[in-house]
Parts: sequence; structure tokens; C-alpha cells
Amino acid sequence: MSAHSKPKSRNPQRPFDLPRFLETRAAAVNAALRRFLPPATARPSTIHRAMHYSLFAGGKRMRPALCLAAAAACGGDERDAIPLACAVECVHTYSLIHDDLPAMDDDDFRRGQPTSHKVFGEGIAVLAGDALLTQAFEIAAQCAGWPRYSHRDVVLELARAGGSLQLIAGQVADLEAEGRKISAGQLRYIHERKTSALLGCSVRLGGMSANCAPAQLRALTDFGYHVGLAFQIIDDILDVTQTSEQLGKTAGKDTASQKATYPAIVGLEQSRRIAERLTRRAFAALKPFRGRAAALEALAAYLLQRDK
Amino acid sequence: MSAHSKPKSRNPQRPFDLPRFLETRAAAVNAALRRFLPPATARPSTIHRAMHYSLFAGGKRMRPALCLAAAAACGGDERDAIPLACAVECVHTYSLIHDDLPAMDDDDFRRGQPTSHKVFGEGIAVLAGDALLTQAFEIAAQCAGWPRYSHRDVVLELARAGGSLQLIAGQVADLEAEGRKISAGQLRYIHERKTSALLGCSVRLGGMSANCAPAQLRALTDFGYHVGLAFQIIDDILDVTQTSEQLGKTAGKDTASQKATYPAIVGLEQSRRIAERLTRRAFAALKPFRGRAAALEALAAYLLQRDK
Repeated sequence: MSAHSKPKSRNPQRPFDLPRFLETRAAAVNAALRRFLPPATARPSTIHRAMHYSLFAGGKRMRPALCLAAAAACGGDERDAIPLACAVECVHTYSLIHDDLPAMDDDDFRRGQPTSHKVFGEGIAVLAGDALLTQAFEIAAQCAGWPRYSHRDVVLELARAGGSLQLIAGQVADLEAEGRKISAGQLRYIHERKTSALLGCSVRLGGMSANCAPAQLRALTDFGYHVGLAFQIIDDILDVTQTSEQLGKTAGKDTASQKATYPAIVGLEQSRRIAERLTRRAFAALKPFRGRAAALEALAAYLLQRDK
Repeated sequence: MSAHSKPKSRNPQRPFDLPRFLETRAAAVNAALRRFLPPATARPSTIHRAMHYSLFAGGKRMRPALCLAAAAACGGDERDAIPLACAVECVHTYSLIHDDLPAMDDDDFRRGQPTSHKVFGEGIAVLAGDALLTQAFEIAAQCAGWPRYSHRDVVLELARAGGSLQLIAGQVADLEAEGRKISAGQLRYIHERKTSALLGCSVRLGGMSANCAPAQLRALTDFGYHVGLAFQIIDDILDVTQTSEQLGKTAGKDTASQKATYPAIVGLEQSRRIAERLTRRAFAALKPFRGRAAALEALAAYLLQRDK
């Protein structure tokens, strides 16, 4: 893995190979996660098995991929971003485990497998989430630190994106919206926090690992915000249009639980148009990076075209 | 608040005023926590009210007091330790909220008040714990940093003490021991992790904030380990000997749930002797600090004499 993979613009004949990018980066991140985490056999093995079960359940590693792609876009060495990419994935996985609990979204399947609480029981599922959240900070603190961005900056970035005003605020507002009629503005508030916050954090941390200039960090923030919102709207759309088998999780869940979604509030076609517009804005945010943002561009395009 | 309060040994006529120490330090820590946390009215207010509810439920702030006392023992300015003392209290409070959940210890009362999930529901209680854990790292990262101990060291210290090999390992082993016959060795494993880990972390972080020498950090580690174990054994003893009213939480809970305790395994008198021996070892660990450890000594003595 290096920052010197061939970007699209230098070689217009060959399109960016996103499947290969995703595969190689997921492999690098998985290998690093295995190094950072205690082994599944570490005492007490229940908690470590539960941590490994959810972390290695076949997630697409979109947030780590965005983090590494952002590092490359800023001219950095992707290897410097690896601890941050791993930390973001731990936060993401913890949030999924807790969101799936019976007291929250009450989901039995995730990524095609039974959810943590179905396998290990609710108590261990709560603790496995807690452990992955704590692990995220332990991993993030092991980054190198950079002239413009210290360990302090990295930890603050992660804590704020994951905190009670962002990621957790989104889940709370989502819980409170269930079964109620909410406005498009309120739904945007939820999606910005449930999804954009951590996607934005992923690309910002990638930029920090490349010691990026403040203007680059602002561009990444802008990119992350728009991609994140688009990503979540697509998720809403897929829940309406795909089967459980295609998704690897329970489809139609949002409709069944009267959960507010973009298609429910503004309709399917309008939702698609909004997602496309947000993606165009995301692409526009990448202009300052010129030829180096091929991976980020490909990832943004993928978020609109994906079917699961 | 300053590092220059009069230590016992310099003024043998006047004993160390622990009630005043606890009161002034709790006030300083509470004021700082109110500065660090979003206000209870911040959107979404449910989560912030839940965070404030548990954090300001009248806890004794023993861990912050130990942290500040350790800073003073190492010749530091207690003000430098305040963010670390606050961070430790957030981790402690998060662990209480999650431990009280129906899927764990299923406790309805804590510090004389209904537990978080009784007031806010299980979903919000899980999220309030998550938010306080995340907040702990946001606060810890705002410390000054010291020549011997960087932000990286502080975050690693907190994450490891709170992680799957320490604090969370203790709760997992505790859950798994319920209703089973376990050995004194296994119970020690639980108590070391459920209690000693975070008490040890509290004094170590206090030492770090005073830029303490490695030998001082080792002495604080030794002190924290022994005080923590004594503290937990006293907790076991109080559960057997006190009423719910005296404790401010459900008494006899451990016996009712067949939870392993020191009195249950080695008897009440032997438990008292072990706690006293551990406290003597804790006092011995303070010798290198000579006259500056009056607060730490008073706190350790308090842990053996407290009746709730």
C-alpha cells in the first residue's frame, strides 16, 4: 500500500480500480486491527470473541477507505493514516452493536449475520460496544502525531465526532423520532449526525495524517459532510427498494418501525435527486486536490451506485 | 485549591482535614465538569439531561480526590490534574450506568436515586454511558501535557485502564461468575479489574500531571492497586452488613443474586483482615512521598473506615 497508486487523471485511459483499492485497503486495515486488538482468546475470552465477531463480520471498511483515500489526496503516506482508519472503524462498529440492541433499533441481523446481542446476549453486547469504543481511543493515541496535528487534535476530533453532540445525538434523535411525524429538516439533523459526522471525521483524520494545510482540511470537511448525507439517503432508499437477502440485513425495517426516512418524507424520486445533488457537491469539494483525489472520487461515486 | 495545603507531618498537632479536602475538591471537580460538558439543555436535551443526571447524582468523587491528592503528593499543582480527574469520573460514571442495566446487574437504585435506565429508559441509558465514555477522552485530551507524559500517554493510560483487559474484563468476569462458585483467586481477578484498575489509573494520572519521576509513578501504581482492592472488599462487606437506606443503593443485592463476594468466600472477619492488610501495604507504598502524601494517607484510611 502506498500513496503512489496511479490516479485517474495521470492515466485517463485506465479508470480508477475501486474494487482493488477497497480490497487492498480492507486487507491492510484488517491486518492492523488484528495487531491492535487483544486476540480473541485473551481472558476473558467472551468479550474478545464478541469484539472480533462484530469487527470482522465482513464490513466494507468504507470509513477506513475514505480515511486512507483522504491521506493520499493530501499527498501523505497512507500508512501514517492506518491507526486513525482503524480507530474510526472501531467507533463505527461499536455504534452498530449498540444501535442493534433491543432497547434501540432491535435488529437481529447485520452484515448477513446474527447481531452481537443475539449471539452473546445483551450484557456482553453492551460491553463489547464499550470495549470497541475504548479501543478506538487506545488505537488513535498510537498514531505518529504530525507538525500541524498532535495526538491531542486527533483524540479531540474522534471524541467530538463520536460524542453527544454528533454521532450519539443522531442516534438519540433517531430513537425519539420513531413513530412520529418529523420534518425533512429534522431528518437531515439526524442523518448529519448519525452518518456525516463519522464520515467527515474519517476524511479529516486522513488529511491530518498527511499534515494537510487548513484549506485542505476544510475541503475534506465539506466533502465528508456531503458524501455522508448522500450515503445515508441511499441507505434509506435501499431499505425501501431491496430485499433482506440483497442487503444482508432486515429490509423494510424502517417502514415497519415507522422510522422516518427520506423516501417516506420527500418520496423516492426526490430522495434520489437529493442524493445525486449532494454527491455533485462532494465532487466539487475535491477540486483543490486536482489529480490526487481519484480514490475519493471513486468512493463518492460508489456511494451513489451501490446496491447494498 | 493548591498543592500547598498543610500536610499532616509538618503540623502534627492538627490532623489532616479530610472532610474539607473532599468537599473542596468535589466542588472544584464539579465546577470543571460543568465547564467541560455540554449543558443539560443542549440538543438533544434527553441525552444531556441523562449525562448530567448520573454525573451529578451526589457521587463522592473518590477517584478525582485520589487523582488530585496524587498530584499534590508528587509536588504538582492540583489544577493541572483537574481535566484528568474529570475524565476518570466520567469513565467511572459511565461504567455505573451500564453495570446497572437490566442485562447486567439490574439495579434500580444508585446513590439513593433511581438508576438511569429507570428514569430515561434502557436505550438512553446505554447512550448516556457511551456519551460519558466518549466525553472522558475529549476531556482528557484537553490536559496541558507534560515533559515526561504527553497527551498520548494520558489517553493510553485511560483507555487501557478502562479497556477490555481491565475495567471491562472485570465486569465481564463478574457477569460470568454470577450464580457460580468461584475461587478467591478468581474473585481477586474481578476486583483488581473492576476497581483497582481505575483507582490505580486515577493516582497514576495525578502523578503524570505533576510530571512525576518513574519511581513515583511506580509507587502510585502500587498504592492504587492495594487501595483499590481494599476499597472493593469493603464494598462487599458493606453490602452484607448495611441496610439499603444506609448505602443509598439496594443492599444484600450481592447475596440475593448469588454474586461472589469476599465475605461469601472467605468469611466476614477474614475479609476485614485482608482489607486491613491491603491498606497497610497501600500506606507503605506512600513512604517515598514523605510528608506530602497526607491526603493520600487520609483517603486510604477513609476507605477502611467508611460505613457507606
